[in-house]
Amino acid sequence: MLQCYIYIAVCGGTHGNELSGVYLVRELLKAKDIVMEEEREEPASVLMVLANPRAMQQCRRYVDTDLNRCFTHATLNGPISDSAPYEMTRSRELNAMLGPKGSPGAVDLVCDLHNTTANMGLCLIAYSDCDWICLHIFKHLQLSLACWIICDACLLKNTFSVAMEIGPQPHGVVRSNIYTAMKDGVQHMLDWVRLFNSGTIFEAGFVDVFTIVKNIDYPRDSETHNITATIHPQLQDRDFLLLHPDDALFQTFSGETLRYKGNEPLYPFFVNECAYYEKGIALGFGKHSETDVNYILFCC
Amino acid sequence: MLQCYIYIAVCGGTHGNELSGVYLVRELLKAKDIVMEEEREEPASVLMVLANPRAMQQCRRYVDTDLNRCFTHATLNGPISDSAPYEMTRSRELNAMLGPKGSPGAVDLVCDLHNTTANMGLCLIAYSDCDWICLHIFKHLQLSLACWIICDACLLKNTFSVAMEIGPQPHGVVRSNIYTAMKDGVQHMLDWVRLFNSGTIFEAGFVDVFTIVKNIDYPRDSETHNITATIHPQLQDRDFLLLHPDDALFQTFSGETLRYKGNEPLYPFFVNECAYYEKGIALGFGKHSETDVNYILFCC
Repeated sequence: MLQCYIYIAVCGGTHGNELSGVYLVRELLKAKDIVMEEEREEPASVLMVLANPRAMQQCRRYVDTDLNRCFTHATLNGPISDSAPYEMTRSRELNAMLGPKGSPGAVDLVCDLHNTTANMGLCLIAYSDCDWICLHIFKHLQLSLACWIICDACLLKNTFSVAMEIGPQPHGVVRSNIYTAMKDGVQHMLDWVRLFNSGTIFEAGFVDVFTIVKNIDYPRDSETHNITATIHPQLQDRDFLLLHPDDALFQTFSGETLRYKGNEPLYPFFVNECAYYEKGIALGFGKHSETDVNYILFCC
Repeated sequence: MLQCYIYIAVCGGTHGNELSGVYLVRELLKAKDIVMEEEREEPASVLMVLANPRAMQQCRRYVDTDLNRCFTHATLNGPISDSAPYEMTRSRELNAMLGPKGSPGAVDLVCDLHNTTANMGLCLIAYSDCDWICLHIFKHLQLSLACWIICDACLLKNTFSVAMEIGPQPHGVVRSNIYTAMKDGVQHMLDWVRLFNSGTIFEAGFVDVFTIVKNIDYPRDSETHNITATIHPQLQDRDFLLLHPDDALFQTFSGETLRYKGNEPLYPFFVNECAYYEKGIALGFGKHSETDVNYILFCC
């Protein structure tokens, strides 16, 4: 049975150079007094957090290690030394603030705001395809906004909640169109939480979902490990548009076209994302499906 | 009187996260043996250099300080300690390799390859409007390619040579269209040098030039110094398109439009360049003019 109220946290600056979330959360924090005034009759249901202030100050993705990979049970609960990476310490602070993860006092949903250099538009990433709150929020957003959904079950153990990825925006830059798209996405998500918390009945339906199949790396020099090609111009910026076997995939720096040699058509995403060069990912591939969403209603 | 041969250096990676130049110079270095083979009958006229290898390795603009501001007479010739910023040491190494600056053995032209997150297309920046070699190269490029020219006399003391700025490309990413535009630009520049070195007569004419008038900063909070607005969507990506008094300039994070309050129309460039946030520059403004280019001919 679902509880009466959903408590949601909106986090910006998990990666300190993804600026839409940084400036949006700052703006929401400024407006917080007004929101709290309006919400006097109901419990405050939204918490705004700037997740990685040191990385934000340096306008870098992270200081010591990727904060977004520091939410495993082992990292949050294992022994920690004074010389631990900053983000390991910070993930424990965030867990204490928003959780502890898995405890009854934890927030029900964390919306983690991100930007990408890929042409992903407004994209929500879930870490399970059976979380009814998330699926209803996705359905609500897909009815009102152009919005892609990715299900990345591989990351289930590392991250909780929903990531909102919006691009294309260079890291270290804030573009007004991307900022506004994020603002709209967050607003629609908060609207759904308010509707839920005020007893709205939500109908059943479907959500369009892309499920991650695999990631692939850039071609690299076997000795230097430097990349020898980048995304082909015919694929660049075409995230979520079906790529067929033998379509152009990479263009080498000497001008040669390398083609997609898979056996089946797949949907590309995170095409040429800046932060994934170091992770060895040129793009991800997914399959498309429709996921059932059941009725839910307020049940206090 | 002009000398018989022009010696040109092409530098990539002056900023280690501007990747088109990094990969282009690596590619040119790979092809160097072939080029030298072809050029056996004439002296080698092109030197390829990766300017800031440490910053490239870390995929950062610089390690300690901006290398592009380390070529003043004082920095190159003053006393230096063991604890000097890496880029101060590196600028001396580069000066020894390509110069010494002002000496008879120095290369005649340095083409310094850069990327920008601004929608600048292919843009060449000169630090004087009376360098005939540069002006003829600009004329040659403007006849064959869509190519903007900026004259930035303010930087005369800090930098020598020509900067090739190409965008939009996020720092830390290489996009095939931008890489190819840079490759074409460099190829045309080297073609001109080869034509000159083989005795071609170059006709007089005009070059379209933008001269820098001023830079302006983002609106900022007086206490935190954080930006409170970003480039307005009506201005974003419209580099080199005339901005008139009262046109939209910024959009605040709360959604308000701030307008350009200048007295005269000006041409914007470097609109929302990532690396200029820390320099307090949201965009530059320039005036347009035509600059005379005189005849030159081979005169050995």
